[in-house]
Amino acid sequence: MSDRPGAPDEGGAAGGFGGRLRSAFDRHGQLCVGIDPHSFLLADWGLADSADGAREFGLRVVDAAVGKVGIVKPQVAFFERYGAAGFGALESVLAAARAAGLLVIADAKRGDLGTSVEAYGQAWLTPGSPLEADALTISAYMGVGSIERPMRLAEETGKGLFVLAATSNPEALAVQTATLLVGARAGKSVAASIVEEVGEWNAAQAGRKNTTDGTPATGGTESINGVPVGSIGLVLGATVDFGAFGIDLAVGDPATPILAPGFGHQGAKFGDLGALYGPSAPFAVVSASRSILQAGPDGIAEAIRAQASEVFACRA
Amino acid sequence: MSDRPGAPDEGGAAGGFGGRLRSAFDRHGQLCVGIDPHSFLLADWGLADSADGAREFGLRVVDAAVGKVGIVKPQVAFFERYGAAGFGALESVLAAARAAGLLVIADAKRGDLGTSVEAYGQAWLTPGSPLEADALTISAYMGVGSIERPMRLAEETGKGLFVLAATSNPEALAVQTATLLVGARAGKSVAASIVEEVGEWNAAQAGRKNTTDGTPATGGTESINGVPVGSIGLVLGATVDFGAFGIDLAVGDPATPILAPGFGHQGAKFGDLGALYGPSAPFAVVSASRSILQAGPDGIAEAIRAQASEVFACRA
Repeated sequence: MSDRPGAPDEGGAAGGFGGRLRSAFDRHGQLCVGIDPHSFLLADWGLADSADGAREFGLRVVDAAVGKVGIVKPQVAFFERYGAAGFGALESVLAAARAAGLLVIADAKRGDLGTSVEAYGQAWLTPGSPLEADALTISAYMGVGSIERPMRLAEETGKGLFVLAATSNPEALAVQTATLLVGARAGKSVAASIVEEVGEWNAAQAGRKNTTDGTPATGGTESINGVPVGSIGLVLGATVDFGAFGIDLAVGDPATPILAPGFGHQGAKFGDLGALYGPSAPFAVVSASRSILQAGPDGIAEAIRAQASEVFACRA
Repeated sequence: MSDRPGAPDEGGAAGGFGGRLRSAFDRHGQLCVGIDPHSFLLADWGLADSADGAREFGLRVVDAAVGKVGIVKPQVAFFERYGAAGFGALESVLAAARAAGLLVIADAKRGDLGTSVEAYGQAWLTPGSPLEADALTISAYMGVGSIERPMRLAEETGKGLFVLAATSNPEALAVQTATLLVGARAGKSVAASIVEEVGEWNAAQAGRKNTTDGTPATGGTESINGVPVGSIGLVLGATVDFGAFGIDLAVGDPATPILAPGFGHQGAKFGDLGALYGPSAPFAVVSASRSILQAGPDGIAEAIRAQASEVFACRA
């Protein structure tokens, strides 16, 4: 492990989250490797079920990922089990990944109101903070308006957010397809209303920047396939029937980035990326965890290489 | 601070979360003191905006609370800002509060699926874990079924959960009042479906225990006003119009405990507890944070004493 934290990649793009994402996609394609130190995986890897074991696991995954993919996604819950020591391990993993030029999505699914959710944003999206990541997953059960403070912070710091919208688990269907009765999006589903609201936020931010600067804020290096990309994304599971949720996958201006779990172990096939996400496929972070991590410490580098190639070949 | 972590209170009741809650209510009434180390409060208290400052703040609130209230609620977001060091501070505060016999609700609003949400449960609800609390707030945007593993863990370890149902912020209204189209609760609102599903879980657990043991599991010391109390509760904000959400406040068997934020700074009056929560008022944890914490280090003990008396006088 002498090369840890790994030779820096070609370096991140300047500017906003869209630029970092485009840079990662350009260099390595759309695969994102999950960092999930389950107890059973730690045992398989010959590591202790402890904060130190989780740190070692995470650093080895980072080592294996560098140069083969552009994005990693630590699942915070597995570190949180060990309390402060687990967060210490996570800090090491986040720092190693970012130092190596990987884009890091902290999968923490935080959510709250007012100054509390603002504090979550500060924890994960503030440059120089101990848990600094490039993006954070977040829940809007209390409305997209409830997470406005971290959305604003992400815009200010060039970070990203992925808001839970439509998830793959069957128990989610009833809540996420429920129909709004009140407000500007009455008649839409809960999930579709979040998709729309995030799209409108990204459009308003782009408009605001264009107005104040006189120059397009999300053009140039911040675009993918020539389309500018917003900072606030969505979690849209790969096994979701988007039609049944009333979700429109048309690409907005700017495009909304998508975090797409559900590949590999959970059943979706990389080859179906275009069919699943339609016109939004080029903006999808294709996330796989267990199907890669189960390869073990000796097989993970090859597993990442093989799956990254497969995803790259499916590029829209 | 020589008496830190405070002389143990009369000690927690054995058994499940309902028993701990009833014991806290019996001794001190229904007030719960929030532990929210905002930056502005740390400054007002003459403390550093750091993990050490947050630890000192939390320990002083615990000291002031012991003997006057039975329940405290640390807001995890304000500790998470400082990363691992902040969780170290939170561990100190949790341990001091529990050692002093306070019932501790970790206000973390976690949520996820499968083994990830199971890991969050393990982090907060496992006896002996570094972040052990007595109860945890949790989000069910992915369906109540998505949090079944921590619900089961809470039952096994005698801990509690409070599931977000209806919150006080205006941006929550559209999502939480949306109408389910599919599933067993089609036609209900999102919030009402969560209320029902949690009530049915508590009833099923009580029935299961009665069947396997032959003895009522939630009777005796686990009851409040003679009604047994379940382990899985709800977050129902005090400023919510429950009728508009289609929420029935009738008491189930067992009763569902309620975490009731929205008092004090957020506008609800203690004197309206009965009017707001109706028959469920005796099962409500009445939470106040800023209105107490703003009294400062010299005034907080008296502020807690005064507000606890006021809440006690309003007892249903």
